[in-house]
Amino acid sequence: MALAIGAVDEASVNYDLLSLADVVFLCTPISQIVPTLPKICPYISERTILTDVGSVKAPIVQECSQLWPNFVGGHPMAGTANWGITAAERDLFVGKVYVLTPTEMTPPRAVKKVETIVRSLGSLVYHCSPELHDRAVAWISHLPVIISASLIRACLQEGEAEVRQLAQEFASSGFRDTSRVGGGNPELGVMMARYNRQALLRSLVQYCHSLEELINCIEQENWESLQEILSQTQQGWSGFRSCDGE
Amino acid sequence: MALAIGAVDEASVNYDLLSLADVVFLCTPISQIVPTLPKICPYISERTILTDVGSVKAPIVQECSQLWPNFVGGHPMAGTANWGITAAERDLFVGKVYVLTPTEMTPPRAVKKVETIVRSLGSLVYHCSPELHDRAVAWISHLPVIISASLIRACLQEGEAEVRQLAQEFASSGFRDTSRVGGGNPELGVMMARYNRQALLRSLVQYCHSLEELINCIEQENWESLQEILSQTQQGWSGFRSCDGE
Repeated sequence: MALAIGAVDEASVNYDLLSLADVVFLCTPISQIVPTLPKICPYISERTILTDVGSVKAPIVQECSQLWPNFVGGHPMAGTANWGITAAERDLFVGKVYVLTPTEMTPPRAVKKVETIVRSLGSLVYHCSPELHDRAVAWISHLPVIISASLIRACLQEGEAEVRQLAQEFASSGFRDTSRVGGGNPELGVMMARYNRQALLRSLVQYCHSLEELINCIEQENWESLQEILSQTQQGWSGFRSCDGE
Repeated sequence: MALAIGAVDEASVNYDLLSLADVVFLCTPISQIVPTLPKICPYISERTILTDVGSVKAPIVQECSQLWPNFVGGHPMAGTANWGITAAERDLFVGKVYVLTPTEMTPPRAVKKVETIVRSLGSLVYHCSPELHDRAVAWISHLPVIISASLIRACLQEGEAEVRQLAQEFASSGFRDTSRVGGGNPELGVMMARYNRQALLRSLVQYCHSLEELINCIEQENWESLQEILSQTQQGWSGFRSCDGE
């Protein structure tokens, strides 16, 4: 099907084909990235560059770099809720962040090569260490999944059936947006938490602290402080890349 | 301007004009609904129906019904981030929920009349008690504001400047959606919390409990339970009116 829609020039389930490639993008689920490496290494030459698209970088980069020095960690922050070749979109990466996470050991030639390719897709390329990447995505990608799932769970656990049903009927765009990522693929959520556990827990501690501050304002009817906090979050919101201009 | 764009047939800042109206919609900020009533009562007849559009109902309905027996509480769940006459949209209410909250004391004729008007706008009309309304909207409207604002606040309080900056750069649609309502109008957020304090605090207790369950799974690396919870939230999500079919 990939051949038929013109997404690839050649395709195979046989690793032999990899011997022709200068750069190999590993696009397996995150748990399969490291186990896949030893399977393909026999088919590629020393000069072949390997890169991955996993959403967590530190554990992947550490292991893959040891198995294959010519490895560049990557994380394209684009995608839809769909998957498989039928979900292919020509302009999927245009204007989207693509993070590369080279270490001191990563050959600069390999980084340069991967960057040239992903830049040609229209991506906004960022470089940072695997550790900083993981802490940043814990904030903007993994933490939202957990708090969003907690929102759905809490609503569903409302004890009074009539209130729960009205809440479900009344839910409009505000609820839909806040809860969307918590209603997504459970396997992906578990993988994020599993591979980025420490950074996620660190963000959760700070989040619980912030939540408590807001709850205290409401409990103590301290409306002035609540107003101040909500003014700060309103101002701060537009400082996040995808949140300005709306 | 309202006259010029054809939104109204007559307009005035003088309460005299109200004497012509069969039904008066009070569209002030929530804190001004009750104080406005005594000001307009001298200009209207006993048969005039008053209704409001406040997003919290129990305290409003209780006070307004005492001041004006021919009062029907209402809450149209539609709107944009814009306000004023320039934000007027002909089809704003089409397919949107419009809740009416009559009590045992509300004259059925008044309810019927308001319902006929709002139904003619294309709204989906619901009836429930002011108290059930407030508990339901605490879940789907007020709780999301607090957890969403806590998310923004927590991110902005990340102590390491480089991580904070990367998080702001990497933020994409997942973060934007989860944080959107927490980055909105602070006055509106305070009013929601103030007028619906008890129902909101009740929802917050349950939310903290759900959040704790998820944190425990991550802390204890209980991935099976986390998977089960996220599968439940995925299934449950589509049970909310605006969340299905996406």
